[in-house]
Amino acid sequence: MRAYTKKDFPVSQIRRFLEPGPIVLVSSAWKGERNIMTMGWHTVMEFTPSLVGCIIAEGNHSHDMIRRSKACVINVPTSDMARTVVGIGNCSGADIDKFEEFKLTAVKAALISAPLIKECYASFECKLADARLVRRYNYFIFEVVKAHVATAPKVPRTIHYRGDGAFMVSGREVSFRPLFRPEMLNT
Amino acid sequence: MRAYTKKDFPVSQIRRFLEPGPIVLVSSAWKGERNIMTMGWHTVMEFTPSLVGCIIAEGNHSHDMIRRSKACVINVPTSDMARTVVGIGNCSGADIDKFEEFKLTAVKAALISAPLIKECYASFECKLADARLVRRYNYFIFEVVKAHVATAPKVPRTIHYRGDGAFMVSGREVSFRPLFRPEMLNT
Repeated sequence: MRAYTKKDFPVSQIRRFLEPGPIVLVSSAWKGERNIMTMGWHTVMEFTPSLVGCIIAEGNHSHDMIRRSKACVINVPTSDMARTVVGIGNCSGADIDKFEEFKLTAVKAALISAPLIKECYASFECKLADARLVRRYNYFIFEVVKAHVATAPKVPRTIHYRGDGAFMVSGREVSFRPLFRPEMLNT
Repeated sequence: MRAYTKKDFPVSQIRRFLEPGPIVLVSSAWKGERNIMTMGWHTVMEFTPSLVGCIIAEGNHSHDMIRRSKACVINVPTSDMARTVVGIGNCSGADIDKFEEFKLTAVKAALISAPLIKECYASFECKLADARLVRRYNYFIFEVVKAHVATAPKVPRTIHYRGDGAFMVSGREVSFRPLFRPEMLNT
């Protein structure tokens, strides 16, 4: 797996990487334990504060860890990590340490206790901002408080889940900037 | 633009088309008026009932129409419609009828008053299921009550917004079914 060089990135602009809908790896920590889960149900909710909403089902070992620690890291893996992403989604952190099992490197975050996954293209440190829909929908609203993004390539080759074992791999990039009203750009 | 032949599709499986994160066109109707908006902030929330959460900002002409009519259609456009999608996102339904302006065909829905957009690959009829986060976050939770999906191709070539006028076009499809636990498949 690659080891991307990363830099701080404006939290108000992380939609660049999440709005296209990649599958992500969510890392968490609670009482000396750490875990990773694969997650596909997420959406950007606001630029400032930088809000992201996610479904983290109660059946996941990470659910309680994130609810209790009130934090997680949303990591964006690239297509070369596809088998790792699938493997992480098909076992439980109740049984194993997924960092060890999948030979991933935990890096200390700046503002929260959950670890970053070094091998991912980007990592977003998140604090739980609103838990009112957790009980009814398993829906967590996080504020991204710090973003670490690879310096190159400019955009990652991501994988996007369709269910039933099938993924779409992100394709070419196109710009339609000239068709936008000025106030719709730079966001 | 293409005219896809469509068939009914199980509402519990619409994640095939929404989870990969395409930009979508949301159509609505209220008191004789109809409108379309471009939307990129959405997530699947549940299989059954089939729930989708979306941010529809208050500044959009569609916001009040959808809040009042308690319904909308989420339509999935394909990459050949990119300029239309951008155009729709850069003007307001307060000034024009976007169906006329962009030469799109409104088709009567089965269960709601909002119209389907015929030229799109898929159309999901939605009823507002939970409005409790509308005021604070502009976050609407819809139940998909009926799904119309093109019979071919099997998956659409979609466009995925990054912000600042830039889009990612969906790329190749890969399957990792053999790596999945059986209970993780068929969803």
